[in-house]
Parts: sequence; C-alpha cells; structure tokens
Amino acid sequence: QIQFADDMQEFTKFPTKTGRRSLSRSISQSSTDSYSSAASYTDSSDDEVSPREKQQTNSKGSSNFCVKNIKQAEFGRREIEIAEQDMSALISLRKRAQGEKPLAGAKIVGCTHITAQTAVLIETLCALGAQCRWSACNIYSTQNEVAAALAEAGVAVFAWKGESEDDFWWCIDRCVNVDGWQANMILDDGGDLTHWVYKKYPNVFKKIRGIVEESVTGVHRLYQLSKAGKLCVPAMNVNDSVTKQKFDNLYCCRESILDGLKRTTDVMFGGKQVVVCGYGEVGKGCCAALKALGAIVYVTEIDPICALQACMDGFRVVKLSEVIRQVDVVITCTGNKNVVTREHLDRMKNSCIVCNMGHSNTEIDVTSLRTPELTWERVRSQVDHVIWPDGKRVVLLAEGRLLNLSCSTVPTFVLSITATTQALALIELYNAPEGRYKQDVYLLPKKMDEYVASLHLPSFDAHLTELTDDQAKYLGLNKNGPFKPNYY
Amino acid sequence: QIQFADDMQEFTKFPTKTGRRSLSRSISQSSTDSYSSAASYTDSSDDEVSPREKQQTNSKGSSNFCVKNIKQAEFGRREIEIAEQDMSALISLRKRAQGEKPLAGAKIVGCTHITAQTAVLIETLCALGAQCRWSACNIYSTQNEVAAALAEAGVAVFAWKGESEDDFWWCIDRCVNVDGWQANMILDDGGDLTHWVYKKYPNVFKKIRGIVEESVTGVHRLYQLSKAGKLCVPAMNVNDSVTKQKFDNLYCCRESILDGLKRTTDVMFGGKQVVVCGYGEVGKGCCAALKALGAIVYVTEIDPICALQACMDGFRVVKLSEVIRQVDVVITCTGNKNVVTREHLDRMKNSCIVCNMGHSNTEIDVTSLRTPELTWERVRSQVDHVIWPDGKRVVLLAEGRLLNLSCSTVPTFVLSITATTQALALIELYNAPEGRYKQDVYLLPKKMDEYVASLHLPSFDAHLTELTDDQAKYLGLNKNGPFKPNYY
Amino acid sequence: QIQFADDMQEFTKFPTKTGRRSLSRSISQSSTDSYSSAASYTDSSDDEVSPREKQQTNSKGSSNFCVKNIKQAEFGRREIEIAEQDMSALISLRKRAQGEKPLAGAKIVGCTHITAQTAVLIETLCALGAQCRWSACNIYSTQNEVAAALAEAGVAVFAWKGESEDDFWWCIDRCVNVDGWQANMILDDGGDLTHWVYKKYPNVFKKIRGIVEESVTGVHRLYQLSKAGKLCVPAMNVNDSVTKQKFDNLYCCRESILDGLKRTTDVMFGGKQVVVCGYGEVGKGCCAALKALGAIVYVTEIDPICALQACMDGFRVVKLSEVIRQVDVVITCTGNKNVVTREHLDRMKNSCIVCNMGHSNTEIDVTSLRTPELTWERVRSQVDHVIWPDGKRVVLLAEGRLLNLSCSTVPTFVLSITATTQALALIELYNAPEGRYKQDVYLLPKKMDEYVASLHLPSFDAHLTELTDDQAKYLGLNKNGPFKPNYY
Amino acid sequence: QIQFADDMQEFTKFPTKTGRRSLSRSISQSSTDSYSSAASYTDSSDDEVSPREKQQTNSKGSSNFCVKNIKQAEFGRREIEIAEQDMSALISLRKRAQGEKPLAGAKIVGCTHITAQTAVLIETLCALGAQCRWSACNIYSTQNEVAAALAEAGVAVFAWKGESEDDFWWCIDRCVNVDGWQANMILDDGGDLTHWVYKKYPNVFKKIRGIVEESVTGVHRLYQLSKAGKLCVPAMNVNDSVTKQKFDNLYCCRESILDGLKRTTDVMFGGKQVVVCGYGEVGKGCCAALKALGAIVYVTEIDPICALQACMDGFRVVKLSEVIRQVDVVITCTGNKNVVTREHLDRMKNSCIVCNMGHSNTEIDVTSLRTPELTWERVRSQVDHVIWPDGKRVVLLAEGRLLNLSCSTVPTFVLSITATTQALALIELYNAPEGRYKQDVYLLPKKMDEYVASLHLPSFDAHLTELTDDQAKYLGLNKNGPFKPNYY
Repeated sequence: QIQFADDMQEFTKFPTKTGRRSLSRSISQSSTDSYSSAASYTDSSDDEVSPREKQQTNSKGSSNFCVKNIKQAEFGRREIEIAEQDMSALISLRKRAQGEKPLAGAKIVGCTHITAQTAVLIETLCALGAQCRWSACNIYSTQNEVAAALAEAGVAVFAWKGESEDDFWWCIDRCVNVDGWQANMILDDGGDLTHWVYKKYPNVFKKIRGIVEESVTGVHRLYQLSKAGKLCVPAMNVNDSVTKQKFDNLYCCRESILDGLKRTTDVMFGGKQVVVCGYGEVGKGCCAALKALGAIVYVTEIDPICALQACMDGFRVVKLSEVIRQVDVVITCTGNKNVVTREHLDRMKNSCIVCNMGHSNTEIDVTSLRTPELTWERVRSQVDHVIWPDGKRVVLLAEGRLLNLSCSTVPTFVLSITATTQALALIELYNAPEGRYKQDVYLLPKKMDEYVASLHLPSFDAHLTELTDDQAKYLGLNKNGPFKPNYY
Repeated sequence: QIQFADDMQEFTKFPTKTGRRSLSRSISQSSTDSYSSAASYTDSSDDEVSPREKQQTNSKGSSNFCVKNIKQAEFGRREIEIAEQDMSALISLRKRAQGEKPLAGAKIVGCTHITAQTAVLIETLCALGAQCRWSACNIYSTQNEVAAALAEAGVAVFAWKGESEDDFWWCIDRCVNVDGWQANMILDDGGDLTHWVYKKYPNVFKKIRGIVEESVTGVHRLYQLSKAGKLCVPAMNVNDSVTKQKFDNLYCCRESILDGLKRTTDVMFGGKQVVVCGYGEVGKGCCAALKALGAIVYVTEIDPICALQACMDGFRVVKLSEVIRQVDVVITCTGNKNVVTREHLDRMKNSCIVCNMGHSNTEIDVTSLRTPELTWERVRSQVDHVIWPDGKRVVLLAEGRLLNLSCSTVPTFVLSITATTQALALIELYNAPEGRYKQDVYLLPKKMDEYVASLHLPSFDAHLTELTDDQAKYLGLNKNGPFKPNYY
Repeated sequence: QIQFADDMQEFTKFPTKTGRRSLSRSISQSSTDSYSSAASYTDSSDDEVSPREKQQTNSKGSSNFCVKNIKQAEFGRREIEIAEQDMSALISLRKRAQGEKPLAGAKIVGCTHITAQTAVLIETLCALGAQCRWSACNIYSTQNEVAAALAEAGVAVFAWKGESEDDFWWCIDRCVNVDGWQANMILDDGGDLTHWVYKKYPNVFKKIRGIVEESVTGVHRLYQLSKAGKLCVPAMNVNDSVTKQKFDNLYCCRESILDGLKRTTDVMFGGKQVVVCGYGEVGKGCCAALKALGAIVYVTEIDPICALQACMDGFRVVKLSEVIRQVDVVITCTGNKNVVTREHLDRMKNSCIVCNMGHSNTEIDVTSLRTPELTWERVRSQVDHVIWPDGKRVVLLAEGRLLNLSCSTVPTFVLSITATTQALALIELYNAPEGRYKQDVYLLPKKMDEYVASLHLPSFDAHLTELTDDQAKYLGLNKNGPFKPNYY
Repeated sequence: QIQFADDMQEFTKFPTKTGRRSLSRSISQSSTDSYSSAASYTDSSDDEVSPREKQQTNSKGSSNFCVKNIKQAEFGRREIEIAEQDMSALISLRKRAQGEKPLAGAKIVGCTHITAQTAVLIETLCALGAQCRWSACNIYSTQNEVAAALAEAGVAVFAWKGESEDDFWWCIDRCVNVDGWQANMILDDGGDLTHWVYKKYPNVFKKIRGIVEESVTGVHRLYQLSKAGKLCVPAMNVNDSVTKQKFDNLYCCRESILDGLKRTTDVMFGGKQVVVCGYGEVGKGCCAALKALGAIVYVTEIDPICALQACMDGFRVVKLSEVIRQVDVVITCTGNKNVVTREHLDRMKNSCIVCNMGHSNTEIDVTSLRTPELTWERVRSQVDHVIWPDGKRVVLLAEGRLLNLSCSTVPTFVLSITATTQALALIELYNAPEGRYKQDVYLLPKKMDEYVASLHLPSFDAHLTELTDDQAKYLGLNKNGPFKPNYY
C-alpha cells in the first residue's frame, strides 16, 4: 500500500472535497443519470468484497483492470450503445479519423467521471489509435456496469462506485505507475491526476506532450502552476472554449432551471414572480426560460452593462431587497458569495423557493439558517422546508448547492460537445509541431472549436453554407475557417 | 356482503375501467403526488388485513369510517396543511362564508380521489356547515394517511389505496346507505356514485337538491341521462367552466409537456424538430412551450380555423406524413384515434420520441406495434424502446396513454381552481331558489366562474380594477359582474 | 335634387358622423392606403367641377356611373391588380364558383369603402354572376382611380373622394332608385344604405333576400330593428364571425400596436414600461407584441377571468393608479370610457405616451386636457405634446382616437378575410332554401367560416389533414366540417 | 478657393462616396428624422444664395460660423430640447462633471452628422469646458435649423444641407485652419476630417492629444494608418465598444427590421416564411423580432458556431437555395457580397420581398437585375417592383442598401449611447497621463464602457446592486468596476 501522508496533507488545503468536485458539472450528470436510468442495478451491491481484493478476468483473459464486477459488462455495453445514439459527433469523428489514426502512439492516462458518455469518448480515443488507462475523478460517480464494459473491451480501467479516499489514489496510481508503459498525454477533470503525477512521478512529464483539463478547478490550478513557472508541459483549457461555454451555460441552464424546479417542487411557473440574481450567461438562460413560461422575472446585477442588457431584454433591474417580500422564487447565478443573506431570508414570504444555479455553494448564506429558532424539515430528496417561529416556510433546494447538478439532468448532447472538445484537444496537442505550444495554458484554437460545432450540426439536420472563392477573398477569410477572430 | 351481479354487468358496458377513469385528470395527480412526496410511507403496507375487517376508532371514539390505518392521521394532517398553503382560495372561501354557513344543513355524499387537495375541499365544505360522507372514485388513488387524517377529524370516509372492485362499491354503499342520515347533495367524479344511487337507492333523489360532477365521463353520462329524460335533479357540469378549461388545458399543458418529456427522456428541447398533432387548447399550450424553449414546431390540423391560427402563431401547418421522417418528437393532442399509425411509426427516424397529450389512449396506434418483428424494451418507468429489425428505436412514452397524467405532476394551484369551482357549485345548487334550476345539466353561472377566478388572484398579488358607476352604466354592466356573456 | 330634410333629422340622432364611421375599421385602411400608395395622384384634383355635373362615358360607351375622372381607370386597374396578389382567397373563390355562377340573377346594391380591395370583392361578385351597383359608405375614403377602373369595367359605381353630405345620399339613391332594375341583395358597411332603403323605398324589401352587414354600428342597428320587430328580411352579421374577430383583434393588433407607435414616435420598445388597460383580444395582442420586443408590460382588468389569464401569461395585474407614475406608455383597449382620467394624466411622468387601441374615442378623457393651463403642441401628424405648466409633456396620439386606424395600416390579408366572408354571406343568403333564414340577424354558419379560413391557408402553404372515414365516425363529425360547434 | 486636386484624387480611391458614408448609421437617422419631424421646414429653401456668400451674425454679434439661415435658430433650439429629453445620460454627465470641467482647455474640432442629437453632444462638450469647431461629415444630413441654433449659441459650426463637394472640404478647412486657435482633439465620423488634417496640416498633430472615431470606415482607416506606422497620435475606436455594439446591432435591429418592413410594404408578419442570411448580432436581432411576431424563420450561416446557436435558438439552418422558392421575405445580414444572386432572384416566388440589413450594399446582387428583360417599377419611395417576363414581381427595398438606414428610424436612446461614449472617450484621451496611450488605436477602457451603461440605467429606473467589501474581495474586483475583463 502506498503512503498517502503528505498528499493527504496537501489535499486538505483544497476546498472541501465535495465542494471542489462539485464544481465540475459532470458529477451531477453521472449521479442523476444513475438515478434515472441505472438506479435499479447500480445499487445492488452484490457483495461487500473490495474490488481491490478480487481476482477478475475479462473474456479475453486480461486482468489489467479493477472494477466492481466484470459480469455487469453486458448491461454496461447497452448503456454505452444508448449514449452513442446521442453522441453522433464522436462517432462521426471516429469515422473521419479512422484511416489516419491521429492518436497512433498516444498513451493517454485519464481521470474523469466514468459514465456511459465518457466511455464513448474513451473508446473513440482508442479507435483513433490511442492506448488508454483510466481512473475516476470522483469516488461516487462511477457507473459500475460501464466500467465493467470498458474493462471487457480491453481498456485498463480502475474505478468503482463508492471508493474510499485510499482507493481513489490507489486507482490513479495504478494508471500512472505501470512497468513498461509510460503515458505521453493526460486527460484530467479536476486536476487530481495531474497533481499526483507532479507529486509522485515528476519524471513522467519528460514524455508528456500535453495536458487537457476540463474543470474550472483544474484549469485554475494549471494557471497557478503556469504563473508560478512550474508548468512544464503545454496544457489545453477546454473549459473555456466558446462552444462549451454557450452550451454549458446559456442553453443548458435555459432547460435545467425549469427541470430542476419542477422535479423538486412541482411549482407552476405561470404568473410566478421570480428574482434572478446575476445576468451573465447562466442568468440569461434562466430568465429567458422562466419568462417564456409566463413568470414575471426581476434581475439583480452589479455590472451596468449586463444590467442594461437585462433592461433591453424586458426585465426590471432591481435590488434584491426591493422585491424580496413579494417574490415566489429566488435564483442565484452570480458566482459571488452571500448574495442571499439571512436578512433576505427573514423577509421572504411564506413558501418562497430559494435555489442556486451559480458556480458554487456560497451564494445563499445557508449557514445562517442553522440556528436554533429555525426548524428544518426534509420534505423530499433535495428539498428542505426551513420553518420560522411564526410558521413561515422557506423552501430551500439542494441546501444551496447547484440546482442543475443536484436536481436535473444534463442532456447527453451537451456532454457530447465536451467530449468532442476533449478528443480534439488531445489530437491537437499530440500532433502539434514542436514549438507551437509552449509550457503554458492554451484555449482550443478557434478553428477546432468551429470543428466541434460543425460535427454537431448534423444532429439538427443543419446545412452550412460554403463561401465561394470570391466571397472568401472579399472577406479575407479561408473558406474552411476560422471565421471569427480568436477573441470573439 | 352486497350482491353486485347486475351492477357489474352494467359496469362492463362502460369503457374499460382504467380507460374510463384515466380520463379524469385527477388520477395522475394523486398518483404522482404519492410518488413524489409520499412514496416512502404509502407503500409500506403495514399489514395485509383488509380495512373492512379492522376495528378502528379515532381519538374521539368514533368508528364512523373505514381507512387503512387511523394511526397515520398525523402524517396525513401535515400533507393537508402543506396543500392548504397553495389552496388559499378555499381557505379564503372558508373565511368569507364562515359567518353565514351557506351549507348549513347540507348532507353531502362525495366520491372523488382522496388526496391532500380534496381533503382541503372536504374540510372547507364542513367549515361551511355541511356534513360529509366520502368514498374514493379510484381504487388506487387514495392517499391512506390523508384518509386517516380526515377520519380523525370526524369525516365519515371510506377509502384506501388498493381497494378491490368489491371494496370499491362497498365503500360507496357505506356512504349512501346510512340509517338516520340521508344525503341531499352529491359531489361526483366519474359518475360511479351517481350511477350507484340511481341503481340502488332511486328514492334518495327525492331529497337531493343537485349533483355536481367534474369529469368528462361523468358529465357525458349526465347529458345522456338528461337526453333520455331520466335526470331527476339539477346537475352542474363543472368540467366545462371557463376557468377550469383554460387552466386544465392551455396553461397546464404548457407546463406539463416540458415536465413530462424531461422526466422521462432528459431530451434537450433546443433545436429539436417537433410535430404537434392538433392545435386546440392543449396543442396551443404544447406548441407555445416548446417554441419558447427553442424547438422547431410543426402542426397538423383538420380544422381550417385552428390551422389558420397556427399559421399566424408562427407554426408551419403540415400533414404528418410530410415531416414524419425528420422530426425528433411526435405529440398527439387531437382527441381523435389512430392519428399516429403504424405507417408513420415505420417511417420515423431512430430515437424519435412519441407521446400523447390528448384525452384518450387511442391517438397513437400502439396496438399496431405489438407484432413479432418488433422488440419492446422497457428502459425506464413509462418509457419503452420499440426496436425495429434494422435496429431503429422509437421511444414510446406511457404506452400511448396521457403523458401529463402519467409522467408529470399537476400543480396544486390548478387543483385549487377545480376544488373551488366544486365548492361554489355545491353552494349555488344548495341555496338556489326553487325553480332556478330544472332537471337538467347546467354550467356554472358566469358570475360564479368569475368569483372562482377572483379568489385566485391574490396568489398573484393581482389587483382588479373596479368600474365606476358611470362606467358600469356606459357598458350596461353590473359593477360586480358578470362581465362577459355566458357564451363567451 | 332630393329632399333630405327628414333624413338629416333622423341622421342627427346617430352618434356624430365621424364618430360613427370611424368605428369601422376600413376607413383608416383606405385612408392610409391612399397615403402610402396612391397619395401622389389622388390629391391631384384635376378640376373643381363636381362629378355630378360632368358627362363621362367609359370606353364601351356606357355612362351608367359617376366618378371623379374616368380617365384614371388605367392607374386604378394596376392598384386592383396589386391588391389581387394578396387576396388569393377571392381569386380562388372566383375560380371554384365560376362554373356554377352561384350569384346568377343576384342584383346587389352595395355601400362600402371603395378601395382596391373592395374592387376585388365587387369584381368577384360579378364573376360569380351578380349585377352590382355601388356607392361609398364614407365621404373621404374613395380611391378615385379605383372607382374609375370599376366604372370602366362596367360596374355602376357612384362615388368620389370628398363628397358632400348631399352627394353622399345622392350616390346611394342612384344605386337604389333605378328604372327597370331592382336590387335583391344588400351589402352594407355602416347601415346607411339599409337605412335609406327603409326610409325611402320600403317596398324594395319585398324582393330583398337578405342584408349582409360588416360594421359594428350597422350590426347594432340591425339588432335594434330586429328587437323592435321591424327587420323584414334576414340579415347576416359578418362582423362577429370567428375568423374575422381573431384576425381583426388579436393578430391585427399584435402588429399594428408596434407599427402605430413606431410611425408616430420612433419609440424604442426595449426596456419600456407599458401599461395596457384591458386584456380582451385586443389587449392580448398588444401585450404579446410589446413583451416580445422587450417591453415590461402591466395589465389592468375589471374581469377576474381575463385578469387570471394575464397573470398566467406573465403580466402583473395592477390598478392604473399604482403604475401611472412610472410607465412610459399607456395603451387603452377596454371599450370603456374615461379609463384614463385627468388625474392619471396629471400624474404621468414627462414624455409618457398615451394612446387608444379600443373601439371608441372615449377611453382617454381628452376633453379634460382642453383647459387653459395646458398647452397643446402638434409636433407631427397625429402627435400632440400636451404641456403642463411645469414643462412636463404628455405625448397624445391621434387625439385619443384609434391608433391602429389613424397611424398604421391594415394588411391586405386581413381585408381579404373580411371580403371573402362578405362574398360567402351573400352566396349563402341568396341560395338558402326558403325558410332557412327568418327575419332575424344571423352569424355566418360555422362551416362557411371554416371555408373562409380554408381559402386563406394556401397563402401560408399550409396543408390541412383530412379525417379518415373511421376517424370522422369516431368523432361524430362530417369529414368536410363543421369541426366545431357553432358556439365555439 | 482651395485646390482640391490631389485630395480628390485620393478621394476616388475610397469606395464610392455614398457607399462609404452610408456605412455610418447616423446618416439615415438624420435624414429620416428630417423626414418625419422637420420635413416641413427643412425643405423650404428660402433662397438660392450659397451660405458661403451670405453675411450672417448671431444675436451676440458673432459671425464665426456658416449656416443656411441663422434665423431658424429658435426652431432648431426646440428640436434640441426635445432630443435632450431622451438623452438624459449626457445631461447627467453635464451635471456630474460640471464642477471639475474635465475638458477645460480642450479645443475640439469635430466632423459628424449635424442633428439635434449631435447638438446635445456638442453642447455637453462645451459645458464640460471645451471649445468646439464643427463641420458635417455628410453633405445631405445637416439639419439646418439645428446648425443655426448651435451658431446662435456660439458654436463655430460650418455646415448646411446640400453642400457641394467643394463646400464639404471648405467647411472642414474652416474648422481646422484658424488663426490663433489650434485644435488639440479630433472627433471624427468617417475619417474625412482626420484625412484632411493629415494631408493639409500635418503639423497640427503635434498638439493633438487624440482622435475619437466612430464609424466602421474611419476606424478601418485608422488601423491601416497604425499598421503602416503613420498614426502619430492615440486614437480611440468607439465603434467597437461593447455597449455600442450590442445596441447598434442586436437591440436596434430587433426593432428596425420590423419598422423598416412595415413602413415600406405593410407586410403582415404572422405566418410569413422568412430567411435571414447570417446569424451574427444583426441576424440574431432580426430573427428574434420576426419569430416573436409569428414569422417562420430560416437561417443561413457559414460559421458552424453561429449555426449551432441558431439551431439552439429554434431556427432551421438551411442553404439559401433550399428555401428560396418558398419564402416570403429574404433578409441579408452577412457583411458579405453576392449572398443573394440572380439565380436566387430568378427562383423567388411572386411578391417575395428582398432587403438588406448587413453593413454594405453588396449583399444582394442588384446589378444583376439591371437587364433588359426585367422591368423596374418604383411603387413607393424605397420600394421597387422588379418584374419578370412572366409577370412575377420581386419587391426590392432600398435598392439593396441598408434597410434600417433607409426606411426606419434610429431611436434617440441609441444615439445617446454613442454620443455619451464619444464624450467619455474625449475626456479619457484628454486627461490621460502621459504615456498611458501610445500612437495606436484603442478600445474604450472597460470601466468607461461600464460608465456609459450606468449613465443610461436611470432611463429604465434600473437599480444597480453594489458589492459589499467582502464580496468584492471574494471576487477579486474593485467595487466600482471594471467587472469584466477587457476581452469580454
């Protein structure tokens, strides 16, 4: 067994484990997916033996994996096949790049949620020529059946649902620390894998051509490394690619705010008065959806430009205190802290619903509600009634954590965009000529961002227009893009 | 035990029991409510003894009821209290009418779903002076805890979840057939109670001042009785009151189509091509919601006036066969049969979702899919994949039954409108001067419909404008309404 | 010359002439049409000689007409041809009914606005077999060139722009009082023609098979006649047909509110606070359009049902006095009087715009603004600044008359629906078997209303679905309609 | 008279004069403003004497100006006062900065459209301490009365409506070439003034602290100068400030597409099929407005990212050729050339409307329509029917020039944003410490952009939220902004 002492120490400097990981959008998706489609079988813990102590082989005789139960492979395969139906961009990428095998020779070590959708990504990477070793970035989010299906298909996967802290690092270590195999690419979600390699196997970086990182937290760490001059390979920040941003924020929240509220409270939207704190992309998505369904929406903002946009889009811009007594729903999307304070909560009317769509659990001052005079009543999963002495109830969702992660699902289509972006980032870094990328953090080149988008257009039967030679010349553009400047 | 022979015979002439009852909107509401808020305890069948064989008394020593377990009363009371929060119109009605007791002397026998929401109605009737005896209109929909709470509060309730056919009629009979108590009002949902009284105790009608009926089926039966000259008391059709219609159809479907699709399939709405068959109120609601969330919506219609409305509202009006190959979702809202045929289903693309929002389970020809060459795979509750020999999957929701009843919830607010309408109809019939109502089926007077609406405005903090004397004279209206002609 | 003494007396009992006529939607359409497309030539009064004193013959040698200048016929013909392009329903009606000539033998005397659009109607009636004599229902609205084109084509038309009162009745008389020709159908807009025949030639009614009346005023008169037992022929009220109502109110106002405000004030809609008084069809159209363009809309209502609809549609329902200080625009759509009072006007903020979309000029108490301390400044056509002593300006549009009539245009498409309805009403009345229609006022039968709609669907390339025999039977409907009950 | 030989030569290298100038949005605004509010008096050319030959003095005895007729000053003053009502941001800027006079010592030479709105800007600059000399950037766009009012108020203005080419440069020269007064700031719209100074008085640049340029063309020239190393002072590109972009494109086009189409064609939007070419900000605005009013909108795009946005927003993405036969309206917003070709025009259906909202007159290949077999018929101002041999008519608006400039108005509110941005840019450049700005082209600093926005919030009664110290620290932001990075 490996000594974790110093790492665990390091670890405690991070935000709380749950807090940190819950920054990643994917966690909820996997857990809710599990809930909805796989609940029946995932929970059936057939035995109590730790996977690390089991001897399992797949049908080809390989034992190069560690999963809960290899026998669940068939079920997992079906889940993967269903996911493939909504991830046609990756399938299409497989087909287009199959001849040239752009990842031939790539040895990728990955650490992500292990779900049907990431399985489609991993198998795409393999189809493009890569060898992969994979662990889970979260101790709860692994779909065991999917892990089994990957193991059966020959992927060296080390992950199961319900890992201990020790299991977590053991799995990562099993991916990196292999005799006769050395990774040359890293795909990370949260930065734990990258962190581990830095701590334990710094020499590995000599061969690494690049890191692809998806999460806000992981990207933040990379920028800090870069600033500190400690980043020794190029890294690609796929979190901030345009396509992903627009989809994860504006479009995704437009759908998930309705879904999250409905599943938890069955609230009728028509005629409800709602205040949305923050009019960034997330706030814009929430406001558009709620207005469309007949809610009366107020907006609070600190930035006058966003405030002016809210005005022009037909929302009254107010201070929270001006409307707090009258609204039926309060939604935070600011990225800030203590946006909804105890004072606000004290003044809300009976049955007011409070929830958070921003990017942390700090927006609502939930701690201030943990006082003796208030009674908490859990009325449903993710729904608490906080009861004031006079009987007033405030309906708090997901204890102030992200509503869209906790109480709604993320469409596979959105995950497809993320996964395709990750695949292209790996291809780009792996094939980039010497010197194109320095030891820095990069955004995906505009042209590849556009390529991700173009791979998703067939789902909508959308037909792109091509520039004529003449038009391209007139505009000073290459016919194949990029069509917009990088800063756009 | 009572002999049911002839009644059961009669009974079989009706549409299939499930079919018929599922026409009533309320059934799903109660069942989904149970699912979401009360699932944990309702299912715990503490014993297998039939309630009919148990001896139970409430805390005041009364045994004038028959419920699953009187000990669940406290839990049920909390559910009722939560429901009261969203049914302020009834609470307000209690307050306004409390002094005059407009139902003093009324002896109401009722047969409805027994849920927290109907409990609020029943207790309102009591508060207004009525005595009530109650049974369930559906063998599955009773919330046992709520029934217990009603029994504890002194209501003579005879109902439990999971009644047999025999139990069902026994409960009804226990409500009607009582020594020393004779009903003078009937509140029915589906017509079974009315039917039973007609069959077994026709003399009861001598004292009955009126019947209030809520369901499409029950109203249909009443009109048939009336046509046949057999209706011997006035009846009020509350199903067709304007307020209820607009809410149950347009506004309710606007919300439930999104909720139903999301809960079952997690589909992303943005960019989806959807065809909605039928542009009545239900279709209008579905189209508005889907368009608002970024779907591209096509409409099919048989009625040129509705078709022209669809055009003006921005929808292409097509024949189903023109778009069937390209759409991602097919929704029926016609009230017709075989709107989606096997030929259409054969031509749908892979992963196409098919569901029904109309008023029966005949719109999609589901029977045509029960053929050997097609494989059915149940992937979630209410979701089947029907798989063609070439691997194409069609996603069929709720086996073609009503999506909004099966897969989404009905907001308490909408139920409040129905319940308030029922209460006012009872008051109206009970207090009407001799001769105002003949032996016929009536709609709620416009003025009372307006009163129902006005009782719900405070929920929205809406402030009505009052006519000045001068304006009322100019318009030829009474200042207190009605404001529109009855036919409006 | 005819003696008008008693008629003029009668006449003064009516609402003021302008008031009455301006109730008819068509007047504005013609006047704005003139403005926009024909202004250049209509105004060129080539001479000052009254048409009544001119001797004119058309190219076929007929003098059976009286228009301004027969030489303008060619120009008028082009205007008619352009109108025909947007009135394909009438053209299609011509083609469908051409063989059977359903109006063969009909002698129609008509009194409507004489514009390119009504010319298309008149020539359609002729094509279907009718003989027509026509006068204008308004002394200002005749397009002289169109009248000339009709005269050239052989229609006996008696109308010009700028008739005197005396001319007006003279023209009507020339249509009715003809040797050897007696009308058997009347098409009226405003009731003046009908009135004249009642007064002067009551015997004519012995041959009349029916009256078709389009205007609110005319219909009102007919109902009064009917009530008084003086209506001696069947009359068809085409004003209240469903198709016309929905188009004239909801859809038309949805477009004209934006157009009217923009043309007069160039106001930016985004972010504006607007209060709409009245949430009937007109109010619904205004609210929908303004909300769609980013305005924040408040609603006032007296009817709780409409108020509840406004709530569910996402509008705050307020009393006017609650928001009058803060709004940028006030729009009345109530049909009531003194909805906006001097008190309201006194409290409006600087630059507030006030206008009326309802059905009379009484909604805003404009008279109250004619006081010495207020200064009126005409800043554009139809736009007055009313200036308070402190410098505050209120922007009053069209002096409180109908904005959509005064300051925007009515699309030809909407006029096409009206004209087609008129044509079908004439066909129905003329061909109805003895006894189908009594001496009463009728609505157009549902089926014909549906037929009007169906004739307009090709403009939208809309494809209607046909019921199968089986479906028709299931629904209890005829495959060709009517599809809805008459009261729907 | 000055020799223009070489300059005129230079001049001809530019795009055609009209083409170039029409790139500036303001031209149309002024011309349409003239049309609508000032047509009556502007056109009355009281005499034919050139202003250059007149001797005029204002009421204070100054002759330091050259305008059409100083006597029109009073009328012009009223126009300015009306404009001030909608430009409260500038008025507010006057008040806030009045004490400190941030432009004290500034000598600004300006060349812009001379309208009531720019007059408010010029007088604001004066109120802040600047001395101004002003000429017109367009030979047609000057409102003579406004110029008179400015002259009367003491501004040295040289401009009138209907200048000759020679007048145009003479006026500019009179602003720059003054004994005893040397400009130290330039405010330009189109680059002509800057060009003139470069050509004629290069020494002036030694004193110039900066250039503020508003137009696309002018900014383009500045970047070229900068690239060529010839830019010898800092320049501020206010055209690309976020606030201006969003307003000029998305929000402004959302309103002007409807206004432009309605004023020219009276088209009904409901049910119309429309194709919008290009889904940038302009296209997004057009699509949103048309969809909101019931049109069915198709989008063409070359950029997959914008195409994906269109999909998610609910528009079908097609190639133009796929829908060209069926659409009722074609709108170009691409910035490209020959987007609508003769082949497309040949295939359009009868009555199809074609117009351009992009940024040049090249998008529709209008030249291809100037062939003998096609007949052009001017049916209204800005509206041509192009008639094919078979009688088909295509309705071409503004001969393919910008619809929003030619056929609709720009709200004063939008002009207020531009003017405020110009004023702040002047203040920033004038007061910047040595070295902050190099000889380069700059965007307005984010913080000032936010300040422009904040000055416009009171118009909407919008209330901004302020960060607490704690929150600002948490976010790492200054409480007063900037709130977003510069690249946002």
